[in-house]
Order: sequence, then C-alpha cells, then structure tokens
Amino acid sequence: MTETLVNALELQNFAESVFLKVGYSEADAKLIASNLLSADLRGVDSHGVARLSGYLRLIKVGRINTKAKPYITHQTPSTAVLDADGALGLLVATEAMNIAIEKSQQVGTGWVSVSNSSHFGIAGRHAMQALPHDMIGIAMTNASALVAPTFGKQRMLGTNPIAVAIPAGNQPPFVADFATTTAANGKLEILQRKGAETPNGWVQNKAGEPTTNANILKEGGVLLPLGSDYEHGSHKGYGLGSIVDVFSAVFSGANYGPWVPPFPAYVPIPENPVGKGIGHFFGAMRIDAWQPSEVFKARMDHWIEAFRNTEPIDSEQPVLIHGDLERAFEIERTANGIPLHPNVITDLKELANELGITTHIFG
Amino acid sequence: MTETLVNALELQNFAESVFLKVGYSEADAKLIASNLLSADLRGVDSHGVARLSGYLRLIKVGRINTKAKPYITHQTPSTAVLDADGALGLLVATEAMNIAIEKSQQVGTGWVSVSNSSHFGIAGRHAMQALPHDMIGIAMTNASALVAPTFGKQRMLGTNPIAVAIPAGNQPPFVADFATTTAANGKLEILQRKGAETPNGWVQNKAGEPTTNANILKEGGVLLPLGSDYEHGSHKGYGLGSIVDVFSAVFSGANYGPWVPPFPAYVPIPENPVGKGIGHFFGAMRIDAWQPSEVFKARMDHWIEAFRNTEPIDSEQPVLIHGDLERAFEIERTANGIPLHPNVITDLKELANELGITTHIFG
Repeated sequence: MTETLVNALELQNFAESVFLKVGYSEADAKLIASNLLSADLRGVDSHGVARLSGYLRLIKVGRINTKAKPYITHQTPSTAVLDADGALGLLVATEAMNIAIEKSQQVGTGWVSVSNSSHFGIAGRHAMQALPHDMIGIAMTNASALVAPTFGKQRMLGTNPIAVAIPAGNQPPFVADFATTTAANGKLEILQRKGAETPNGWVQNKAGEPTTNANILKEGGVLLPLGSDYEHGSHKGYGLGSIVDVFSAVFSGANYGPWVPPFPAYVPIPENPVGKGIGHFFGAMRIDAWQPSEVFKARMDHWIEAFRNTEPIDSEQPVLIHGDLERAFEIERTANGIPLHPNVITDLKELANELGITTHIFG
Repeated sequence: MTETLVNALELQNFAESVFLKVGYSEADAKLIASNLLSADLRGVDSHGVARLSGYLRLIKVGRINTKAKPYITHQTPSTAVLDADGALGLLVATEAMNIAIEKSQQVGTGWVSVSNSSHFGIAGRHAMQALPHDMIGIAMTNASALVAPTFGKQRMLGTNPIAVAIPAGNQPPFVADFATTTAANGKLEILQRKGAETPNGWVQNKAGEPTTNANILKEGGVLLPLGSDYEHGSHKGYGLGSIVDVFSAVFSGANYGPWVPPFPAYVPIPENPVGKGIGHFFGAMRIDAWQPSEVFKARMDHWIEAFRNTEPIDSEQPVLIHGDLERAFEIERTANGIPLHPNVITDLKELANELGITTHIFG
C-alpha cells in the first residue's frame, strides 16, 4: 500500500491527453489539467487526479457537456449570471473568474454566480486567479448534500467550501480555502483506509446520534457543520454552508440544498430538480479600489508578519498563515513528485488503456 | 437578582435622551438609540443598553467624536473607503450601508470599508438595512483582540462577527449574524454570573492550555476560533476572523489584529497604532442583479421552506433558519418588554442622574 511518486508535469500532461481524447481543444484540455493538478500539488489529494476517472464517467453518461458554450443570462456593471451549459466546472470556473476580473477592472469589484455547472476542483485555485491582477479573489461552490443542519437528521447541504485569496507584497499571498464542515470528506476517506475512528464531532448517524464511525456516510450518516454541535457553534457552520448555497444556486438558478447533483455518475440525480446543475459564486476586488496598491501590499505584509510572529503554544508548531501549508506542498511536490495511492494508480492505468493512451509514468 | 422588564419604546426614548444630552442632533440620537435597542430586542443583551454607559465613557474621554463628519477618501463605482472621523460606530454604520445601497442601485453591488470608527453594535442590524431595498446586506467588523490563532497563545483577533441578510418573499428573511469564535464573549459573561464552567473548546489559558474556567479572560486567557481546536477545524474560524480583519481594516486604513482599540475606556489604546480606530466592512447586492425579483424571492422562499422542514433529531427542537430565534425575541420583547439585569438597571439610573435625565422607567 505504499504510494508511488509521479512527476507533476508528466501527470499533468497525462491528464491533458485524457481530456484531449474525450474531445476538448488543446487549450481547454491544458487548462482543465492544470486546474486539476493544482489540487494534487497543493496537497488536496481528494480533489486531484484521484477524481479524474470520476469526471470521465460523468462525461460518458452525458452529465457533463464537453461541447458546452457558457453564456451570460443577465448582468449589471458589477455582476453576471453565467449559465455554464452543462460544462465541466474545472473549465468554466476559469471563465467565470475572468468575467469577475474584467468587471472589477471596470467598476472596482466583479461578482459572478454560475448555474448548470459541475464539480470545479479546489476553490482556492480559482480565488488565486485574481492574485496576478492585484485583486482579491473569492470562490465558493455548492456540492451534493452530505451535511445536516444543526438539530437536523437529513442531508441538506454539501461541504460548500469558501476560498479567499488576498495579495501581499514581499510576503506570499493569504489563501484561505476550507469546507464549511468540521472535517471535509477527504479526511474521512483517510481514516477509512486506516480503519480508524473519527474524533468526536465530525459525523452523526442516520438517527442523528453522535458517532465516531468513519464509514457512517455509507450507512446514511451525515457530516456535521463547522462547530460540530450547537454548544460549539455548529449553527455558524450551518449558516456559512447556507450562505454558500444561496449565493451559488439561489442567485444563479442552479440546484440548491438536497437537489444538488452527486459526483458519482452511478448515483441517480435527485428528483424534481429546482434548477440546473450545480452552482458556484466568484468575486474579484481590485486592491487599489481600497488603497493605493503599494500601501495595500505593505499593510498586508505587516498583517501577515504580525500573525506569523504570534507566540506559539508549542515552539515546534508555529502559527501559520492561510496558504502556508499548501504552498509548502506545492514546492515539495513540484520538486519530488506527487504521491499516488495504489488504487489511484490502478484507476489511471485502466483509464489510459480504455482511452488508448500510452504512458509509462505509472511504472 | 431577578430581571426587570422595561418597555422597549420607553427604553429607546431614554437612550435617545442620553445621546441628545451629549450633543447629538435629534435625528442622530434617534438613529443611535434605535440601532442600540435592536440588540436588546433581538436578544443580544450584551450589545444593547448594557453597553450604553460604556459608549458614554468613550465619549467622555474623547475616544468617540460626537461632532464627527465622516468622509469618503477613495471610491470606484462599486466601492468606497469611508473615514468615520472618530464617529460612534452605531451611527456611521447606517451611513456606510446607505453608501453601499446607493452604489448597488447604480452598478448592481456596493461595498464600503470604514476606518476610524468605534463599536457598531450588532452586525445583523446593519446587514438588515439592505432588506427593504430588495438587496442582500452584508456587515462585518473587527474588534479588540481576545482570540488566539490556531497553535497560538496570544490575543490577535477580535470576535469579528459576520452578518448576511437575504430577502425572501412570503417567508421572513434569512439573517445570519455570528461571531467567528466558538462562543461570543456575552456567553462567557452569562456563565460568570452563574459561577459555572464553560464547555470544553471555548477558551484557553495564558499558557495555551485548554480550560473550562469562565473567568480565564481576566487571567490573560483567550477565546478560541470557531472550531475550537485544529482537529475540529479551528483554522477555519481563524481564517474567517482573519478575513473580517483584513476586509475591515487592511482595506480601510483602520487598526487590525492586536492594535484594534478596546471598548472599555479605562483600557489603554495599544501602542504604535497601525491605522485609525476600528474598521468595518459592508456590502449590498440587488437581488435583481441575479434573478428577476419575484423569481429570486420565490426561490428563497422555497429554500427556506425546504430547510425548515428538515427532519429534526428531536421533535421538540425543529431545525431553524438563521434569524428565526432573533425574530421570536423581537416579537416577544416588543410585546412584553426588555428584561434588564439589576446591574444594568443600577448603571442606567446612575447615568440618568449624572446627565440630569428624569425617568421613571427603571422603577
């Protein structure tokens, strides 16, 4: 069960060849592969090439439209609603952020809500798209329901992540990217592989009782909102997940709550849809809408330095700035390769065979 | 130690007379009193008239400027930076939201970051200001440092609340308003009065160790970010508090992090300030920037109904929508009066004497 290290660029080229094979243009396949690999590089293994065959199955059953032509259905100078036309979220997210960035250039900020989309990978990648433009980037998405509201039994919300990227000057940018649950699904999967229990406060069984069974989602259990229980503020996590759902889907015309379509192609789409596909929300704000760029960056550098220098509880574990961990992963994995689980290797080899792609990178 | 019920309108008139006495115009005194009372009405006792004499002390020592003339220092079509000129936050927040609303009318959304301000009361009140305009309202503020970042010992962030108000049609609006900590300071104060311990995961002592001592803040302890500890996602609460701090203060030119001035007038202002006063961030988004108003409201009604109908764990405790609890308080307290703690009564009577205000409402 040891992991295999695969060169990041070769893995990205492989992913690109997969998307070329199923009909994307070279430019689109490159972009999709680069968005997908950003997850593996940044240490979010659950959202990278481990999902590649999942995306392909959605394409095969017609739940993702490889010929999609996203179009704006409504706009104001600072906002747009984009119908993704069934596109791959990994692809249309870049287009939606480009619209937000363009609007921000015009009027200071730009905001785009997207319907009729599918899984967009890691939110942080899209928020970071604003950084080279000297803009703050924001990205969120809803997802199929796995989370019960405070006091509830049923799955009503996805893990609905929020990402915010803020440029600095000499310091690396602040990049927060987190699910609005206590623990994301990927963390449960790690415990399942180890046969371990979860900590208290991550999950709840079908009857609404606390449990530490890492497999409970397979038995109708649910993830808990950030805060775990009411006494520890789970209503706040429920509120954040709700805000993401409304901004992504009530705004855009996508499905919300328990109607959000699932990622696995074999799981039926919920009946009586309330919109089209899944929804995302993006934002871009020019830093010079707030302060002259150099002043903004100097203030942000100082903010980051002050927080980084917080006295730590344990001298071995310094206080981190959001984005530090992922950046360290990116440096290390760019240099040394991306560790792939044997199951992922098998999966990717099968995919290569099926599509007639010759590759030696998986050994 | 029983509480006294005081008629809400009479209490508001009393607060108005207090602000008139210290030099505000009738219109401003009315607005301040109404913003202050909204906290008592909505059940947030820690942010209402219990703080009245605290605001007065800040005025007395010159930390709040009763003659402030807030001015815009920089703007784009969708953004403004407002220097509050040392104003009472309770007052300037309404003005800042008005600017956001006006910009939203022009270009779809409006965003205002405020420096040189002071405590603005409850965030939800300001977010709700957008609702009658058929807009989504957003309000956040930084506050003096009481919270340690994940892995840290020192107080670096305030309880930095986030409020989001979303209009619906037949349903009452969605109004989320919460501190980005596991528990707000007001909840600790309730336990202190009872001589009770806190649950695990609310606070940490000066050495960075977990504790359940409700008085630990007086001994150099800290509040914990939403999530409590790393295993339960406290880095997410730390991230949210950081985002509020940056949007409110790095954007505007206010103090951030440990430099935010304290509420109690006897506590010295931190040395080497990095900006002016405390900072806020406000937003307004027209609902018809997203969907035709009637469509938006129908979708939001349906979203609210679906979540309200989530199967509850305990049939006695239904799943709530954000804003339900506060609205129930407002109805009950408008009808029956606002319960004031004996200490608050004593405090307000002293204030009345000192200012030469004759009132019978405190018995």
